[in-house]
Amino acid sequence: MYNFLSSGAFVETFTIEPYSNGSLNGLTFAVKDNIDIAQYKTSYGSPSWQHKHKSAIYNALCVDQLLGAGATCLGKTVSDEFTYSLDGENFFFGTPINPKVPDRIPGGSSSGSAVAVACGLVDFAIGTDSAGSIRVPASLCGVYAMRPTMHRISEAGVLPFVPSSSTVGAFANDINVLGYVMQTLLKSESVVSQKIETIYLLEDAFNTSDAEVSDLIKDSINNLLVNIDADVVSITLSDILGEEATLDMLNVNALRPLQTFEFLNTVGNWIEHESPELSPFFAMKYETVRKFDRKSVSDSLRLCERYFRRMSSFLKKGDLVLFPTVPTVAPLKHSLGDMETALDFYDRTMSITSFSGIGRLPEISIPIANIDNAPVGLSVAAGFYQDEFLISSVKQLLCEVMMSPQTK
Amino acid sequence: MYNFLSSGAFVETFTIEPYSNGSLNGLTFAVKDNIDIAQYKTSYGSPSWQHKHKSAIYNALCVDQLLGAGATCLGKTVSDEFTYSLDGENFFFGTPINPKVPDRIPGGSSSGSAVAVACGLVDFAIGTDSAGSIRVPASLCGVYAMRPTMHRISEAGVLPFVPSSSTVGAFANDINVLGYVMQTLLKSESVVSQKIETIYLLEDAFNTSDAEVSDLIKDSINNLLVNIDADVVSITLSDILGEEATLDMLNVNALRPLQTFEFLNTVGNWIEHESPELSPFFAMKYETVRKFDRKSVSDSLRLCERYFRRMSSFLKKGDLVLFPTVPTVAPLKHSLGDMETALDFYDRTMSITSFSGIGRLPEISIPIANIDNAPVGLSVAAGFYQDEFLISSVKQLLCEVMMSPQTK
Repeated sequence: MYNFLSSGAFVETFTIEPYSNGSLNGLTFAVKDNIDIAQYKTSYGSPSWQHKHKSAIYNALCVDQLLGAGATCLGKTVSDEFTYSLDGENFFFGTPINPKVPDRIPGGSSSGSAVAVACGLVDFAIGTDSAGSIRVPASLCGVYAMRPTMHRISEAGVLPFVPSSSTVGAFANDINVLGYVMQTLLKSESVVSQKIETIYLLEDAFNTSDAEVSDLIKDSINNLLVNIDADVVSITLSDILGEEATLDMLNVNALRPLQTFEFLNTVGNWIEHESPELSPFFAMKYETVRKFDRKSVSDSLRLCERYFRRMSSFLKKGDLVLFPTVPTVAPLKHSLGDMETALDFYDRTMSITSFSGIGRLPEISIPIANIDNAPVGLSVAAGFYQDEFLISSVKQLLCEVMMSPQTK
Repeated sequence: MYNFLSSGAFVETFTIEPYSNGSLNGLTFAVKDNIDIAQYKTSYGSPSWQHKHKSAIYNALCVDQLLGAGATCLGKTVSDEFTYSLDGENFFFGTPINPKVPDRIPGGSSSGSAVAVACGLVDFAIGTDSAGSIRVPASLCGVYAMRPTMHRISEAGVLPFVPSSSTVGAFANDINVLGYVMQTLLKSESVVSQKIETIYLLEDAFNTSDAEVSDLIKDSINNLLVNIDADVVSITLSDILGEEATLDMLNVNALRPLQTFEFLNTVGNWIEHESPELSPFFAMKYETVRKFDRKSVSDSLRLCERYFRRMSSFLKKGDLVLFPTVPTVAPLKHSLGDMETALDFYDRTMSITSFSGIGRLPEISIPIANIDNAPVGLSVAAGFYQDEFLISSVKQLLCEVMMSPQTK
């Protein structure tokens, strides 16, 4: 068992009482340290950033929403440096402990939020996700998490990162808690529930994944779907986009360049002026980032738009898309210091996470299974703005196998 | 005739050549001074902000898109202080001249961009719009302008303002130029054109407007529609939202509080720490802004979401909504120093602009008529993400009356 200190999940702990009663009464939460908490300095995972900025005057709007719904805030959690990583090993703030496999990385960049939940220290935690920063640590640490439809949650008070694709989302050990939290942040109204019509299995993502991860997830899906009355259809990305396309193309040609250009406008601008202390690994990545030719920006922007439109036309109300959240279990700590291992992990992971990234889709990662204790996540995505349908569908899938998240 | 200097539209002039050839070849443009241009300081309409910040390292992404499409940038234009105004009278940078009625205000906050176009100094200009900052100066200065569907254009390199409702958009003297510019920024692909099915006249907005503005716009609409084969239907906001609702409620209960809370997270945070020099009028408004109780944020967020969803369900492909862009002609300069006059102008204008604001809708303002030389704008809005349909529909409406914008 890990506590607030030994988990390595927290940058600071404190107690902020809720403003009023609501659907989150009695629940406690933690906040990734790129999201403002009034009277505290937001570190952005960088001691230099923290040092050179003043404390926030106001809470981020999403934090005010949670306090207004009855939840109590218990602290700020470790984030990767400038949130620009998927591994969760922060050179300065340390590596939060993945409680199920402590010799493996927790995943990032919302590492502390995932770990705070995985260790049972809070009922839920919030984070941000552009290229997988919520989904990846959720999968590697074995907790539920949701990244919503892009731009559905206010980014006011969240540090500027990549404005066209960052989202606020949440982690929990319980799908019902996750649902309540997300419904608060999404301002959901009660809606007539929508039947699950078609369940697509995204074969590109299964093929991208380690064989044992793919096989285990396919088995788990068979269990989940045993009593579900819906069409189950294997598809490829080309079926959706109507042209030859791979997940790798989504990532390399479209989403990653867009995110890189936007990152240069926000964090890059600051780094150039302030020459902050950077970790060796980040500094190396940043040198690559700086070499992107901005004159080519329109090409990647056009691809992002085209792919988004085609995904939006393809996915109907009632559709779900299932795939492994991450192509592997959590890599061993420090193993990503080897460049070849790091590139393999990043390229395959980001090719999968770019599916919902490009589609701006809501996605929930379910802690579905383990391989030698190491968690494996199943992702369920739904159409643009179908967040409420996604939440109710995931609950329905989990009920079917009598899988109570608390007792699994 | 006004030049770059005498128009008062520019903060700085320079020439940035295009990166490559494209659909904007040979066109010149200007950029509102809350949008980064590499190697220049972005003022945000505030000398203190300009002084306390360093020059931008990178162009905003939208500027790179335009340079990549063949356009030449000629300068940065005056913006209202922190873009937090609709009048266009900047205490520090002066009031750009409304060339058609020089004794009247140009409208803001994208005042310089509207005036640069109205004076014919550039072919087009870009600006930003949250509560009307593109639409209002377009209407008051008599130029075409479009605010697109929210979040369709990257905000990277645009100074953080109100993340949930600010948009980048453009001004031009010619609907075809405006169309090319917007299609570049929107990454539009050629699409099968959609027939105009239903044209709604939003009666709440006509009733909010001065009688002579309403009457003139209704007459103009009759001319525009004479050969259009579409249903023309008068509606009220209550018809759309399915509950008793007024434009004033959209503004006062929903959009304005959201924008105020978000403004405190961005500009407010900075003002509290830096104690910058503020104009007397902005300082007075800011004192009001500070008094908003953040504990009530969830109420306005929920209303914004509910109204957005209902508008989205109501407006189908092929639907247009027509209404006066602004309820009056441009007020006389300095007249808004009178509190009662200012409140009347702001409350009525923002109640109308909140329609597309809440709906996150694309809206084009057409310079449709004049009252004693003072321009009056007709707004045409379309459904969420129907930007391309909106552009083609407006072109079709204008063709029908043989109204070439250049020769009107």
